[in-house]
Amino acid sequence: MPNVYAVIMAGGVGSRFWPRSREKSPKQLLEIVNKETMIQSTVKRISDLIEPKNILIVTNKLQKPMVMKQLPQIPTANVIVEPQVRNTAPCIGLASLFVHQNDPEAVMVVLPSDHIMQDEEEFRRVLRLAAWVAYESGKLITVGIQPSRPETGYGYIQFIDEDADHTNPYFTRGVYKVKTFAEKPNEATARQFIDSGDFLWNSGMFIWRADAILREIRHLLPELDEELSKINDAIGTDSYDQVVETSYRMIRSISIDYGVMEKTKDVYVIKGNFGWSDVGSWDEVYRIAGKDEHGNSVTGRTHLQQTKNTLVYAGDKFVATIGVEDLIVIATDNAVLVCRQGKSQEVKEIVDYLRRKQMNDLL
Amino acid sequence: MPNVYAVIMAGGVGSRFWPRSREKSPKQLLEIVNKETMIQSTVKRISDLIEPKNILIVTNKLQKPMVMKQLPQIPTANVIVEPQVRNTAPCIGLASLFVHQNDPEAVMVVLPSDHIMQDEEEFRRVLRLAAWVAYESGKLITVGIQPSRPETGYGYIQFIDEDADHTNPYFTRGVYKVKTFAEKPNEATARQFIDSGDFLWNSGMFIWRADAILREIRHLLPELDEELSKINDAIGTDSYDQVVETSYRMIRSISIDYGVMEKTKDVYVIKGNFGWSDVGSWDEVYRIAGKDEHGNSVTGRTHLQQTKNTLVYAGDKFVATIGVEDLIVIATDNAVLVCRQGKSQEVKEIVDYLRRKQMNDLL
Repeated sequence: MPNVYAVIMAGGVGSRFWPRSREKSPKQLLEIVNKETMIQSTVKRISDLIEPKNILIVTNKLQKPMVMKQLPQIPTANVIVEPQVRNTAPCIGLASLFVHQNDPEAVMVVLPSDHIMQDEEEFRRVLRLAAWVAYESGKLITVGIQPSRPETGYGYIQFIDEDADHTNPYFTRGVYKVKTFAEKPNEATARQFIDSGDFLWNSGMFIWRADAILREIRHLLPELDEELSKINDAIGTDSYDQVVETSYRMIRSISIDYGVMEKTKDVYVIKGNFGWSDVGSWDEVYRIAGKDEHGNSVTGRTHLQQTKNTLVYAGDKFVATIGVEDLIVIATDNAVLVCRQGKSQEVKEIVDYLRRKQMNDLL
Repeated sequence: MPNVYAVIMAGGVGSRFWPRSREKSPKQLLEIVNKETMIQSTVKRISDLIEPKNILIVTNKLQKPMVMKQLPQIPTANVIVEPQVRNTAPCIGLASLFVHQNDPEAVMVVLPSDHIMQDEEEFRRVLRLAAWVAYESGKLITVGIQPSRPETGYGYIQFIDEDADHTNPYFTRGVYKVKTFAEKPNEATARQFIDSGDFLWNSGMFIWRADAILREIRHLLPELDEELSKINDAIGTDSYDQVVETSYRMIRSISIDYGVMEKTKDVYVIKGNFGWSDVGSWDEVYRIAGKDEHGNSVTGRTHLQQTKNTLVYAGDKFVATIGVEDLIVIATDNAVLVCRQGKSQEVKEIVDYLRRKQMNDLL
């Protein structure tokens, strides 16, 4: 078996869960779905598969203390800090250096820190298969989620559902070649994707060998590679922090999808049928939440009268509702959100407003 | 001119403005409509007419400190404490003793502490007229509000719109004899009342001489009169507090409407056309509030997106709404209410729930 590492990307400063998510407490550090924080669930979910010393967390300076507090089992040295937000390619590149120094042939499982999987056993089965294929083939592997609706908020992956030329030795194992990556579609296109049967949601989960991803970065993102080389040389030296700081000023923001996945050949995709959710909005939280017979889902001290299909998070407050339906009500220490179901994407605009007005106590 | 006193009834422990109104801060002590509290507005409204030394406030022990703090111009001796809540007849009877001891022929203007009048000049004109008629005639006078809708939440007063037998010397001044008092009607009856043209809303405001109301209490409520006599003898003595305490244990709850007004003869009513509101619910607050072009009325730090016809009180919190309409959103220190417009009468049930559950931090 290959040496398997997890790289958990935890630097997000999401604004979609305002008023709960704040700069100092982004979604991945909150108990959004469970009694654990999302990053705690993410680590726990893979703990049968990957031991703590092989789990790397990439975060930022502001969040590092909370990450370490929430994940005491992870060695401090495994918490990697990015000095700036530069999207996923630099984040993954940086983590790859650490894995590569330990074992160039080690497989990295790259995971967002704030997704959920309902069938965790199946999730681990997929990761095991992916790790094995990634190790043996040296290819880049991604996980595509079987779509359940024409979602316009995700990217899509089209796969090749045949092996006519017998160039895919993993075809019979349910590992497909990627035909193309598609950007977030409009609704009509999303419906076509669903109807075609050969499109999957892009989950943002990747599995590959450290040497494979660094090789692709070298070919496709030479500027990033140049800075990563400098950082690589500094790992373990006193100048490391300074070098990372300087390099990150040079590194431009680019996603691993756009920078690598869409441009490289021979990417494989494995279908994920494990009840995945990116928990991307309050609407999605309501969708996946347990509900009572009136369709309400409540957390905290609440009293709902004549209320239907409503999500309530009371925080340390008491929330009462009367005669309402299809609402999202989120109460926190200093802010309250009341949002119609289906509109929670627009929470970002509230946060934009608060930034414009410099209402920092609410950010 | 008669010597005129005001008696402001301020002992209410209303639950209809939860979560703002609490046991220690009932509606009359809150800034519900203005930047002044309702009792401050009530006193200010009559201050052209009645000087502070002639304004009596009847309240309870819990609220007395706040009453005195909010109304520093009122002499401490004028703040009368009822040891128990016993409805309006005992409250008015008790205050009448104090007025009567000063001047038996003095006119008392009995006012709730938590109503508003949009046309305060007209309100004072009505009070002046009523005080003059009450003084001269020795009759009981009440103020009836010209109804604007078939409200089922108020009692009604039917008046006699003629003076066929020339027994009403004030008829030409717009002072009518009362034909009957009617309890809160159902909607069909309320519509009949409105259509008939001779029904007014019972405002709970009364004007009479101290000797007149005490005489009526003596005839109609002899048990109350007996206790009031004991209290009357104790006024100004060291035993006063003890006597009031003991008497109030004997006194039964009864409203001045049921105990006196509905049973006595020769009651006069003056029509009030001064934009009266009893501000009886959050719905009523929204009805009388100033609104922006989307029909929203907000107090405090808020940001409303795609929101219509919504009342928001943010307290010291920040409240954001997205895509909602016809709501009432009230945020306080430890509780949030989200209520459909038209449903705010049911706020009482929330308070009942909190009492049953003994959630005292929310009461």
